[in-house]
Amino acid sequence: VSFADAVSAVRPLDEDAMNAARDRHLRLTKPAGSLGQVEELGVQLAGISGACPPPVPEAPAVAVFAADHGVVASGVTPWPQEVTAQMVANFAAGGAAINALARQVGADVRVVDVGVAAELESLAGIEHRKVRRGTDDLARGPALSKDDVHAALEVGVDVASELVSESHDLLLTGDMGIGNTTASAAVISALLGVDAAVVTGRGTGIDDAMLEHKRKIVDRAVTRIATTTDPVLVLAEVGGLEIAALAGFIIGGAAERAPVIVDGVIALAALLAADALVPGVAAHTIAGHRSTEPGASAALDRLGLAPLLDLGMRLGEGTGACLAVPIVQSAARVLAEMATFEDAAVAHRPD
Amino acid sequence: VSFADAVSAVRPLDEDAMNAARDRHLRLTKPAGSLGQVEELGVQLAGISGACPPPVPEAPAVAVFAADHGVVASGVTPWPQEVTAQMVANFAAGGAAINALARQVGADVRVVDVGVAAELESLAGIEHRKVRRGTDDLARGPALSKDDVHAALEVGVDVASELVSESHDLLLTGDMGIGNTTASAAVISALLGVDAAVVTGRGTGIDDAMLEHKRKIVDRAVTRIATTTDPVLVLAEVGGLEIAALAGFIIGGAAERAPVIVDGVIALAALLAADALVPGVAAHTIAGHRSTEPGASAALDRLGLAPLLDLGMRLGEGTGACLAVPIVQSAARVLAEMATFEDAAVAHRPD
Repeated sequence: VSFADAVSAVRPLDEDAMNAARDRHLRLTKPAGSLGQVEELGVQLAGISGACPPPVPEAPAVAVFAADHGVVASGVTPWPQEVTAQMVANFAAGGAAINALARQVGADVRVVDVGVAAELESLAGIEHRKVRRGTDDLARGPALSKDDVHAALEVGVDVASELVSESHDLLLTGDMGIGNTTASAAVISALLGVDAAVVTGRGTGIDDAMLEHKRKIVDRAVTRIATTTDPVLVLAEVGGLEIAALAGFIIGGAAERAPVIVDGVIALAALLAADALVPGVAAHTIAGHRSTEPGASAALDRLGLAPLLDLGMRLGEGTGACLAVPIVQSAARVLAEMATFEDAAVAHRPD
Repeated sequence: VSFADAVSAVRPLDEDAMNAARDRHLRLTKPAGSLGQVEELGVQLAGISGACPPPVPEAPAVAVFAADHGVVASGVTPWPQEVTAQMVANFAAGGAAINALARQVGADVRVVDVGVAAELESLAGIEHRKVRRGTDDLARGPALSKDDVHAALEVGVDVASELVSESHDLLLTGDMGIGNTTASAAVISALLGVDAAVVTGRGTGIDDAMLEHKRKIVDRAVTRIATTTDPVLVLAEVGGLEIAALAGFIIGGAAERAPVIVDGVIALAALLAADALVPGVAAHTIAGHRSTEPGASAALDRLGLAPLLDLGMRLGEGTGACLAVPIVQSAARVLAEMATFEDAAVAHRPD
């Protein structure tokens, strides 16, 4: 599936299915509204699938897009760049947090090298879809060309449709890339039109001095593109290859009518770009959790997404999306499996 | 196992295992602290089990204690009392929310009639441990005798040790009882020493007039026992059979060193009583979610428990505890399965 085909395949949520889900919630053996956000999530799943009850997702998969960032040369993180490739090897060996959390919820882990700086051709167990070896330093000029961005968007769409063709029915965003909270903060700042200081955070845990420096870098880079509203140009100037691939992945999932659980700040930067490219695509996504990165909350607020979890996490990789999987499955199960007052011969409250 | 034996078997959390877990978290391939509350939960599980890494719980069970409340005669809920028995039958048939959510996380559902008003002897698929047929109206006098409370505490301890002897390694609290948010609000008000108006909520969703009436009833009942600090007397005067049984269940779980996930406001009323009976027992419990009932937040704050979920739920039955199961399992898995920086040959950030 090409990016252009995916874009034209995205449909609004199915209102009839959503209304059927709302009606069904009133007839199930529980006080109306007593499952709170789980009920709203069930309605959304009906809208995405176009069916009530919606199917219970049974085969989740997390796509972990890995790429490097030239901006590490400008001193925005204490972690050396080679950690990106080392963590990709750790994913392939099954030793990272995403592997442990994915195993817990029965999710497949698909690791995609979309732009790691190191040569990884000989590494088994990952998909080799490198667009280029990392970005240029966004502090000094454009991180990517627009062609690079388009290539990464295509990779993302392709991975989503590949996973769905392998019968995965719930897609999760994952990411790895030393320096990528800097690029994400810049994308969020540019697309939301808010100050860098508001959306730039400590990432993996930097000190006050480095945070101050990181904010200045984001601020200067975003100033370069203050007049643009083109999401592809934003991704090229200050984004990253995994961010662009994730934007494609989200659009690809929506095109396939598969619910997409977005993870933290990297995924939300991608979602803002995706929703600018395909207005309304965010309605097909579920916010897995609220990352501690300030850019995450700014993006969630703008998109009107209520995250399922708020556990003070800031790891990325797709970890927060994995933890949310059983909640999504439960929301569908409630609609699919609960008895109605009538079926169960339970007295309803008098109205 | 008797209640007295359980009380004397409860131990403080194992500090050595907790320190080992804290140390291990620093060596695993992730930025320190980046899994937030999931890391703290892993430390707690180490403390409960006395081992690092703690075992990953694989066989959760939710005990749903059902009982009736004489206070329904005083008009605190629009739901008829027979709904308690009808919902117990719905649990036994597998059609309630707790059944759907328990199936999702692989939890067994143990339904225990500890005090339903209706005769349920002929109902298969539940445990018949009725102490008496519902409580008396707490608006008019003591709900229970102290002997009734002791009997219900014994039932709770017994169910916990029975589940552990059947190899369940993660216990969840569940409840059913029309009128039980009134009794829970009264227990919480009495044990926290806070006004009824602060901790009394809408339960299944009552209107302003009924809420005002419910608050007055709770306030008057609590005033009767303003001078007592005896948790058994509080449970007798204004509590309920499922609340007392849950207090015993929590103590029984802690005695067995099994983590206990507490659900909503009913379970938190029971936990306050349990922690008054056995100071420190709350350290063995995990708050599954933050119920919308105001008494739940008041109890969580006093106990210093940070709930794992906050999804606007107020159903009870153990539903919020079920949704939290995979997070608890994930917290143990992180410590058990993740590679260290050294093992995975990943460069650590320079300090």
